[in-house]
Amino acid sequence: MRNLSEDTITQEVLDRIAGTKNERTKEVLSELIQHLHDFARKVRLTEQEWLQGIEFLTAVGHKTDEKRHEFILLSDTLGLSMLTVCINNSKPVGCTEATVFGPFHVPNAPEFALGADIANGAKGSACHVSGRVLGLKGEAIENAHMDVWQADEEGVYDVQNPNFTEHRARGIFRTAPDGSYRFTTVVGESYPIPTDGPVGDMLAATGRHPWRPAHLHFKITAPGYQTLVTHVFREGDKYLDSDAVFGVRENLIAPWTKNADGEFSLKYDFILNRA
Amino acid sequence: MRNLSEDTITQEVLDRIAGTKNERTKEVLSELIQHLHDFARKVRLTEQEWLQGIEFLTAVGHKTDEKRHEFILLSDTLGLSMLTVCINNSKPVGCTEATVFGPFHVPNAPEFALGADIANGAKGSACHVSGRVLGLKGEAIENAHMDVWQADEEGVYDVQNPNFTEHRARGIFRTAPDGSYRFTTVVGESYPIPTDGPVGDMLAATGRHPWRPAHLHFKITAPGYQTLVTHVFREGDKYLDSDAVFGVRENLIAPWTKNADGEFSLKYDFILNRA
Repeated sequence: MRNLSEDTITQEVLDRIAGTKNERTKEVLSELIQHLHDFARKVRLTEQEWLQGIEFLTAVGHKTDEKRHEFILLSDTLGLSMLTVCINNSKPVGCTEATVFGPFHVPNAPEFALGADIANGAKGSACHVSGRVLGLKGEAIENAHMDVWQADEEGVYDVQNPNFTEHRARGIFRTAPDGSYRFTTVVGESYPIPTDGPVGDMLAATGRHPWRPAHLHFKITAPGYQTLVTHVFREGDKYLDSDAVFGVRENLIAPWTKNADGEFSLKYDFILNRA
Repeated sequence: MRNLSEDTITQEVLDRIAGTKNERTKEVLSELIQHLHDFARKVRLTEQEWLQGIEFLTAVGHKTDEKRHEFILLSDTLGLSMLTVCINNSKPVGCTEATVFGPFHVPNAPEFALGADIANGAKGSACHVSGRVLGLKGEAIENAHMDVWQADEEGVYDVQNPNFTEHRARGIFRTAPDGSYRFTTVVGESYPIPTDGPVGDMLAATGRHPWRPAHLHFKITAPGYQTLVTHVFREGDKYLDSDAVFGVRENLIAPWTKNADGEFSLKYDFILNRA
């Protein structure tokens, strides 16, 4: 078709992908095209703005590597990540809620025995974390695979260190027969998401702060249960109501208790939903 | 705000960018967020699909460099580029219409005197191109800056050659006092857009061919006139009705005439709109 106008081009693009074999791919791509075109028409996108968009996305791509996930950060700060979590994680009352995955997970972290100290040189006061992984009826979930990661007291993850070679404050555990887990790590603090890339430019342009409240990441998988990707947030943190990535949920907030010896304790039970 | 749901998160993200100083930035970003979230809700985007999207965009970014503009190619094949052209180039009847910029323009191409041969080794039969650059009232536009680029008879642009060092079939001219221009190049042929990257994967998944009808690119600028980015398409090309990037307009199609000596001629006048 020739001489397409702003009123006819969307249907032509949709017609052009009519031969898509996978029905779901066709559905998702069709809606993406429709919404993308609607956006451009709605704002009367200029050619200069189009080019700025191309350059911005290119910069996001170039900033991204195995340790720096700028596209995840962009999705997180635009609320798309948390929206996707909301869409996919409606669960019965009583289950632990999910939140964003974030850009700092590392596959194949080292596995530790229960009770191990995973700090491995990460800075911060010692923190003893314990609790149980349970089903909704209170049943213990044995041998659940628990992937843990966090920032240190300076708000920095091990992978953000340019000389990153060793995992710090990061590890994998398996729950005991009674569903319990325990390990030692450090007390992490609130931190700004990385602002030295295009996402940082966007936050500056929109007058937003880049801070996330202090938290500890968990990814818990167990046969027969829905995988849970979540955080436990630190009670009292000043960014709980303005998390830069919109991830805070009331029932994920818990106290880090200071003990007589100056070390800290955190107790938290996770309730998984049946698959 | 805590405990955001799929129904409340969009407003929270919009509230968070309320402090954006530039009003236009705020408008564009607000609509982008609204349309992006609407898309995710509409298709019930899964977490796996979200991750595939992140990985696809990252691959597009990694494929992009100074010579390969995969994000432009993505925009072109989704019809966004041509839509943006449509939104910004409504002109009085009689003006030459605009079409997509494409991913193969190179800034600072060499400048030539009128009549020069820009082929510089590009493969193909010689083609003598001439015409005038005029205003809507027929006034000659002198000294218009005319940036020309094209593929060769194998459908390949100079920059697609991995050993690219010299500009071929690419150059800049200035129109004569009577608005005329003339130069010699080669006859380009229709060609597939590059399919060895993520955009090629998308075309394959959607059952689309990657071909563009044969054309010659022009970018013409002159003080007091709107810049014109356009092509002249070759009459009779079999892809005129299914251009992979949706760019064909009836009044941009012209005949490449074969002369008695086996060389070709193309005559085309460009009519610019007042700025």
